[in-house]
Amino acid sequence: MGPLPAVAAVRVAVRRCLGDLAPGELVLVACSGGADSLALAAATAFEAPRAGLRAGAVTVDHGLQPGSAERAERLRHVLGDLGLDPVEVVPVQVGAEGGPEAAARTARYRALDEAAERLGAAAVLLGHTRDDQAETVLLGLARGSGARSLAGMPARFGRYRRPLLDVPRATTRAACVDQGLEPWEDPHNADPAYTRARIRHQALPALEAALGPGVSAALARTARLLRDDADALDAWAERARVECVTPNGGLDTDALAALPPAVRRRVLRRAAVEAGSPAGSLFAVHVEAVDALVTAWRGQGPVQLPGGVVAVRRCGTLYLGQEPPTQS
Amino acid sequence: MGPLPAVAAVRVAVRRCLGDLAPGELVLVACSGGADSLALAAATAFEAPRAGLRAGAVTVDHGLQPGSAERAERLRHVLGDLGLDPVEVVPVQVGAEGGPEAAARTARYRALDEAAERLGAAAVLLGHTRDDQAETVLLGLARGSGARSLAGMPARFGRYRRPLLDVPRATTRAACVDQGLEPWEDPHNADPAYTRARIRHQALPALEAALGPGVSAALARTARLLRDDADALDAWAERARVECVTPNGGLDTDALAALPPAVRRRVLRRAAVEAGSPAGSLFAVHVEAVDALVTAWRGQGPVQLPGGVVAVRRCGTLYLGQEPPTQS
Repeated sequence: MGPLPAVAAVRVAVRRCLGDLAPGELVLVACSGGADSLALAAATAFEAPRAGLRAGAVTVDHGLQPGSAERAERLRHVLGDLGLDPVEVVPVQVGAEGGPEAAARTARYRALDEAAERLGAAAVLLGHTRDDQAETVLLGLARGSGARSLAGMPARFGRYRRPLLDVPRATTRAACVDQGLEPWEDPHNADPAYTRARIRHQALPALEAALGPGVSAALARTARLLRDDADALDAWAERARVECVTPNGGLDTDALAALPPAVRRRVLRRAAVEAGSPAGSLFAVHVEAVDALVTAWRGQGPVQLPGGVVAVRRCGTLYLGQEPPTQS
Repeated sequence: MGPLPAVAAVRVAVRRCLGDLAPGELVLVACSGGADSLALAAATAFEAPRAGLRAGAVTVDHGLQPGSAERAERLRHVLGDLGLDPVEVVPVQVGAEGGPEAAARTARYRALDEAAERLGAAAVLLGHTRDDQAETVLLGLARGSGARSLAGMPARFGRYRRPLLDVPRATTRAACVDQGLEPWEDPHNADPAYTRARIRHQALPALEAALGPGVSAALARTARLLRDDADALDAWAERARVECVTPNGGLDTDALAALPPAVRRRVLRRAAVEAGSPAGSLFAVHVEAVDALVTAWRGQGPVQLPGGVVAVRRCGTLYLGQEPPTQS
């Protein structure tokens, strides 16, 4: 008899994700003790040796809740019993920058990076599921800044991999039950003070009630498609930017005007960032104001952008820089 | 003293929309009697003569509710009093195809097309607001088929124009109140049997509660950006398709494989539709199966697509057609 369906589904996802690693390499599972990363840890402990790989785990103790150190120690034993080796508990100090969620994430990835370096891991696996992806897409919707903000989490970035982005959360929960694993429920996940908890427990259920089941799957599929769209358009914009550059370092407005709006806006955004405008502060409204210098020219003055960057148009050429160029 | 802010906002949106029409041309407002199209009718009656245009209105009586004919007659008088001329009431028979919402829409556009042709209208204005656009984006999310399904309603298509896509519904309601106009509330808009009503009254408020105000504006902005993205990528795919065509009418798989995934999928989708696969039945999963013939080739057999279309790979060339080509 083979494994139960949920256990098999998680294992297949992990197996597909490990296929390109060389024998003997070390894979680390980032495990919080929640159902998603616990099921991931169990599946990795099963699959990695069969692929000739070593598998370990890192659990980050954020120290944000009473008893977190004891919980991390218990988890260390559970992960060791699964056959993972090494298993590390890394305590971190969570700062305050960018709000509680962002600060915890920053501290967590710093600790994971440090552990991966120290242990020489070829890959770090993260337990984000299809439902996490759907929530991330909805969080991106609120920004309303186009394909990139709806593209969700990538399946891979640097040493990190997310094997479970197509696996529903219900499957990881079932896999834990089937294997007698007792996941820890982070009370933050149900705390409506957190945006993601409100998305999970209020917004997504309301969307499912309105649109029918399958909304999470549709959102995850949307993320994948829009990520590819954004990649293709970024590549086009990079080529187009090179072709628009004038000998004196500006951008030719005729060449810009001939581009499709989606490409032109990306060229202008990138030019603004290169000129020193911080990407995180540069909103659609800024890019549109620069675009108007190209497509709705009526002699307007310089456009002020975040980071002290100024965009001006002179004699059919657009200049972006820290200061407007002196008229010669 | 100028008009009140809501009245002014609707008028400005209408004025911007009429700027390209030639003096003496006729503009028709499609008016249901609801707040959106009633505010649109009042603004058009005000703006059109100032732009040298004639303005009339058409109201479609769907005959779906008791008293609809009387209501349409009362609306005819209201619209006439606003100064619109001609004002036509067009009764229609709503079929059943595609569900009640789709059938009513089909009947309505047929009636509007006929009236526009008969009266020689240069443009027909529709009262969809920013909130309608946000709802349309969420409806598209459920399909999960990428940028095009999230692109919402276009600001223009054929003779139709939507001047209010950036105007919140609250503004059209306020504009009606400010002008003493009494809009009709379609009970269907609150009937949870309709998907759009569930989106409006349940899903969007839940999203606003989770993400904060501004969700509708973000969704409308997303629609505009993704529409431009989809247009640019479609244009790229059309160029790429021409470059991939082989002398014997297939598609070169090496050339296809060199394209970014977002472009290649669009090339394959278009090739399938040209070969006779109905666009509405062709889902991402079909396109992915054809894509696997290009990017994950391991000698697989033909891929069956809707409409009896078959995709096969032979000697580095992909063929899409009603029958697999005979091996010669």
